[in-house]
Amino acid sequence: MSLIIVGSLALDTIEAPAGTVEDVPGGSSSYCSLAASYFTHPNIVGVVGKDFPDSVMTLFKDHRINLEGLAVEEGKTFRWGGRYAENFDTRTTLFTELNVFETFNPVLPENYKAAGYVLLANIHPGLQHHVLDQLNADSFVVLDTMNLWIDTALEDLLTLIKRVNMLVINDEEALMLTQERNYGKAAKKLQAMGPEWVIIKKGQHGALLFHEENVFSVPGLILDEVKDPTGAGDTFVGALTGYLDQSKDHSFDNMKLALVFGSVLASFCVEDFSVDGITYLQESELEERYDEFVLMSQF
Amino acid sequence: MSLIIVGSLALDTIEAPAGTVEDVPGGSSSYCSLAASYFTHPNIVGVVGKDFPDSVMTLFKDHRINLEGLAVEEGKTFRWGGRYAENFDTRTTLFTELNVFETFNPVLPENYKAAGYVLLANIHPGLQHHVLDQLNADSFVVLDTMNLWIDTALEDLLTLIKRVNMLVINDEEALMLTQERNYGKAAKKLQAMGPEWVIIKKGQHGALLFHEENVFSVPGLILDEVKDPTGAGDTFVGALTGYLDQSKDHSFDNMKLALVFGSVLASFCVEDFSVDGITYLQESELEERYDEFVLMSQF
Repeated sequence: MSLIIVGSLALDTIEAPAGTVEDVPGGSSSYCSLAASYFTHPNIVGVVGKDFPDSVMTLFKDHRINLEGLAVEEGKTFRWGGRYAENFDTRTTLFTELNVFETFNPVLPENYKAAGYVLLANIHPGLQHHVLDQLNADSFVVLDTMNLWIDTALEDLLTLIKRVNMLVINDEEALMLTQERNYGKAAKKLQAMGPEWVIIKKGQHGALLFHEENVFSVPGLILDEVKDPTGAGDTFVGALTGYLDQSKDHSFDNMKLALVFGSVLASFCVEDFSVDGITYLQESELEERYDEFVLMSQF
Repeated sequence: MSLIIVGSLALDTIEAPAGTVEDVPGGSSSYCSLAASYFTHPNIVGVVGKDFPDSVMTLFKDHRINLEGLAVEEGKTFRWGGRYAENFDTRTTLFTELNVFETFNPVLPENYKAAGYVLLANIHPGLQHHVLDQLNADSFVVLDTMNLWIDTALEDLLTLIKRVNMLVINDEEALMLTQERNYGKAAKKLQAMGPEWVIIKKGQHGALLFHEENVFSVPGLILDEVKDPTGAGDTFVGALTGYLDQSKDHSFDNMKLALVFGSVLASFCVEDFSVDGITYLQESELEERYDEFVLMSQF
């Protein structure tokens, strides 16, 4: 078993300047696993309701995603609705219906427990702890988190951070959690909490990787149009972890490449609604976009 | 005559978390010319009062800055005072005393008029027009501007932009001026206004260079401490233009290097008050910091 991904699967309703879509695939795990699938065979743990569309199941299977850990329960799938302002500066949550996700208790199938890589996609830190408790290998654990858990589950989050190899967090959250105003100082504090690797996501400004005394910055690609930023962070960390699982190389130079490929997939993600930007991409498309990152940042 | 720099020379009072300094060298031209001096012999055009310290004149001369175009007039030097908030999020202007700068009329000495490079550092666009009117060569003109002129002298600014080869503008100003929310679209509009080269400065997130269909992103260095961000943008554009004058190479690859060296000098600037961070730097210090940019962005 190589990479397992534990997170949410949802049906989203998204209102954005370019249009509105309803009941489209969403949730951290959907984005993470589709993005990771370009590099490895991800294995997901999650829950959906009986109403989860067969077409999405087929999409996952087409992307070589192992669904053995995906429970299909009586009831409705987790639903989330959000609206973006004209300039994407703000996102308003329209509704959150947990449905079957309310009682989600991630149980790892026996053959998942020796996973080489574990991606704890964005869900409650208590559930993320529970996943780690079930592992019986020295897995490389990547944790993605968000401000909601800093506000509502800080203690769980802090003990969880100690247990992971890589923390992925966005810029505002990193500063909020460390009470710092400087990314370097924030990263030092986060590294001191446990994770050997810290990634600070900066949206359109790209991302920063910190490891020991080293820093790497990957830029955000300049895109003609952003249609839907939902899931861009999940896509970034999914592709990044997928790339690590494929390469199994934890050198700083290889981690740099993992961030670049994370950014490549994230740039496709925002160009279309839901997961549409990251499905059925050709290798040549990934290569072209990688080359754009090279042109944009190499001197 | 190679590079001429036209801008303000001031004595600043700066209140920042790390301390307060009074009547220290400031103004766009001071930062620009000191930064440029690491690459070429800049020639400045400006005005100061009789109270301008000899020690600063000596500093300029030590940095091979030609002061032939610097008028010393009866009266006091332009003074500016500013206060930074604890986290550098906001800067409040405490006072502005134009003094001799109020009637500044930039007159180019005869031998300045065939300058290969002209840096119009931040002053009123009307004065910047007046400088261009005096040139008798096909100079490469770099324009640095700020939000004040978008608000108060928009028409002058728009006609000026048509006349320059390179526009350097910060992110908020670029978006304000073009009514866009996307850097790529903003840059396209700015390029369409005339300048072949557009640079969008993003503070701690670095800067973006646009030329035809090409984009380059230089990151902001992660610094342990920022003492005084005053003049960082001036330092960036000063070093950048000095580097261009030294190399006289307008290829995209060389422009990339100009941005990196601009960023190298700007990173020194913010580490100390006033111009103290960019005086008497050793070549080895510039090289070390250049190497930090390489490590941080090359993959």
